[in-house]
Amino acid sequence: LPAGAADVFPGARECLGRAGRGEVAGPEAGNLFSGLARRFGTPLYIYDEETIRGQIRRFRQAFESLFPRVRVLYALKANASLAVVRILKSGGARAEVVSGGELYLARQAEFSGDQIMFTSSSKSPWEIDAAIRAGAVLNLDSFDDLEAASEAAGRLGARATISFRINPGVDPTTLHQINTGITESKFGLHIASGIAFSAFERARRLPNLEIAGAQCHIGSQIASTAGYEETARRMLALLLDLRDKLDLTLRFLDLGGGIAIPYRPGERIMTPEDLARALLPVWGSGVAALGYEPELWLEPGRFLVGPAGFLLMRVNSVKVTPVKTIVNVDAGFNDLIRPVLYGAYYRVFAPGKSGPTSSVDVAGVICETGDILASDRMLPRLCRGDLLLIPDAGAYGFSMASEYNLQPLPAEVLVRSDDRAAVIREREPLEEFLRRQRVPEDLL
Amino acid sequence: LPAGAADVFPGARECLGRAGRGEVAGPEAGNLFSGLARRFGTPLYIYDEETIRGQIRRFRQAFESLFPRVRVLYALKANASLAVVRILKSGGARAEVVSGGELYLARQAEFSGDQIMFTSSSKSPWEIDAAIRAGAVLNLDSFDDLEAASEAAGRLGARATISFRINPGVDPTTLHQINTGITESKFGLHIASGIAFSAFERARRLPNLEIAGAQCHIGSQIASTAGYEETARRMLALLLDLRDKLDLTLRFLDLGGGIAIPYRPGERIMTPEDLARALLPVWGSGVAALGYEPELWLEPGRFLVGPAGFLLMRVNSVKVTPVKTIVNVDAGFNDLIRPVLYGAYYRVFAPGKSGPTSSVDVAGVICETGDILASDRMLPRLCRGDLLLIPDAGAYGFSMASEYNLQPLPAEVLVRSDDRAAVIREREPLEEFLRRQRVPEDLL
Repeated sequence: LPAGAADVFPGARECLGRAGRGEVAGPEAGNLFSGLARRFGTPLYIYDEETIRGQIRRFRQAFESLFPRVRVLYALKANASLAVVRILKSGGARAEVVSGGELYLARQAEFSGDQIMFTSSSKSPWEIDAAIRAGAVLNLDSFDDLEAASEAAGRLGARATISFRINPGVDPTTLHQINTGITESKFGLHIASGIAFSAFERARRLPNLEIAGAQCHIGSQIASTAGYEETARRMLALLLDLRDKLDLTLRFLDLGGGIAIPYRPGERIMTPEDLARALLPVWGSGVAALGYEPELWLEPGRFLVGPAGFLLMRVNSVKVTPVKTIVNVDAGFNDLIRPVLYGAYYRVFAPGKSGPTSSVDVAGVICETGDILASDRMLPRLCRGDLLLIPDAGAYGFSMASEYNLQPLPAEVLVRSDDRAAVIREREPLEEFLRRQRVPEDLL
Repeated sequence: LPAGAADVFPGARECLGRAGRGEVAGPEAGNLFSGLARRFGTPLYIYDEETIRGQIRRFRQAFESLFPRVRVLYALKANASLAVVRILKSGGARAEVVSGGELYLARQAEFSGDQIMFTSSSKSPWEIDAAIRAGAVLNLDSFDDLEAASEAAGRLGARATISFRINPGVDPTTLHQINTGITESKFGLHIASGIAFSAFERARRLPNLEIAGAQCHIGSQIASTAGYEETARRMLALLLDLRDKLDLTLRFLDLGGGIAIPYRPGERIMTPEDLARALLPVWGSGVAALGYEPELWLEPGRFLVGPAGFLLMRVNSVKVTPVKTIVNVDAGFNDLIRPVLYGAYYRVFAPGKSGPTSSVDVAGVICETGDILASDRMLPRLCRGDLLLIPDAGAYGFSMASEYNLQPLPAEVLVRSDDRAAVIREREPLEEFLRRQRVPEDLL
């Protein structure tokens, strides 16, 4: 992959740092974002490399200072842009992938197989093969998965390193759609009814498998430690059961990801330090009972990249209706689907603008009534051509983008510590809408 | 675009016709769908050309038999695959596009500019330029749009053919997210408060514009005629006002799309014939008052392609949990987002399977609890490797697909009247996840 265009925008790094804190009214912010928009077009994803580096450093330190053996796996689904993944790799992260595509990407980022955890509730045969070939940990979600893994390893003449996704039956009190650890969820083998235990028991009787660990993941955007503590307690009790009844010890216990970031102004969220401190006593007594200490694995995604990303968009029109004022922008749920899909809240700023504010809806470009990126926000007076900025858009932004309405996928730029802004993904040209299309001759 | 691979599957056409009616238990269906899955892989979109041809024929006939001058514009956002668009063009449809990307696609499908209506609530300057250059009708959504169109036409030395998107303030009683004609919607210039009237008035005073029509669109998946009748009444009243007070006559009145299809077994939905008959008296008295008859334009999308499409997917695993049985398939909301985004219902069948049924959830491949394609469905006993089929997936299926979780975009095949199945879009290879990506050298 060739390096992308990289221009220097003096003061960019510092300006982005301030923008993340909502300080964008000054002329520096106005200049920076107009410069970026002019150079790279809109809608545009902008990532701040220093923030990504700071987040992985902080997360690792929070846990490594309290636990002897910790592995932090970056959940690629949050943002699988290669440059972003490479930054996290160089910051010491390993990779958690959920598909053959993400496995491919992680290999392109030069993660070795044993640095990769492959987890998915629904694995296709080719994905199981690819994970075994790569030597990744294959995190199994069902008895069917287990049989498939053993068969595939035999067929490939390999040993599959496996773990099990466990459903601990814990509700971390987050959005229902992203509550992955509750009993009703599609994920994992339930501790309840002894299902998880039976899976390990069965795995020991199947050939070509090496049982390495147990994994769980209770949800996303979790703001308090209680769910993690209860989950750790239940998982450690399962490990004790496995040691006592099967004489089985595990190399790692993976407590998943889901660590929230604040999206709303002033929102109170647990920090990684809060989480590490809360888990320590649970872990300590669990390990004491176990008589051995597995590695503690964690899988943050949003925490590492969310605060580093911004979506920059341009106002196409402002319309006063009898009931509200609508600011139509050139981004939409094709670029950022979380507001429409989950009712997610994002801050919205008008860089370089100040003065009296009034309430507006920021409406997306998609031809659906639901495409409102932010409603009822107090913003300065806006005209067509003005810019708007959404911070905290580094996670589940571009990674969930689509070409719906044949809107081209946006460009991504990375702002480096030396104020260079480097393209890490070119904007999609219209010609790409024809890629891989075929038309029978008589229809031409 | 080269022709895609095309194999003959004897009886395919008839079998697809039956599958659309839910008749898939026999061995012919089992054989056809396993054959297609083996040949083209899963997840796979399959379209039945004859159904598309039948839908456009039926829709045109319903209106052309009652109205003297009708134009049926296919709303490309439902499915912008070029082969599908070409079939509809050859069936006499014109094109309704909502972005510069769709405009590009329509031009690739060889629609002339005057066969294209460009409508969007948020138009970027380059899109306005492209629409004017193409000679498309530019459907304006705001006063800002109007100024932009007049300026752009002047700059390009052209005349822009324009119409206005009108918000009639009618609630057609459909899903809130896709209710586009209510007062609160982001769409259109409101008839209320005289805003729509003022827009026409202002347009007459601006240079480089030719006022051609008025357009509205009250929503999607509308199952009864009442909302359309009321909308037609209000739109015709607006036209009367324009004639009386501005001496302005319009070439067309576009009543939009939104015509529903049945998704649930036995669902009662208005037919195009119902709609045409219901509109006739409203139109007749409106036209009599007007003293001239504009062309009637309509913009079906879902109706034309929805019933023609199927999503074929393979079972990766079946899991019995303490609370339910989960069938994990290799498709997910990356392929078909409507169940997750709107709570939309789709039928699900197991082709070639019969025997006792039990309740299962069909869970998608995406790593989110919410990725359930269908819940609590009675299906025959399923094992990994079995196939499942979702009919009615021709509209807002592939067009809303994404690469989320780095799941490759699925392939699309078209079943022709001679039982050939032709690839119209190749499955995305993993290498394409790197397309347009760039990595700064020091990060490599």
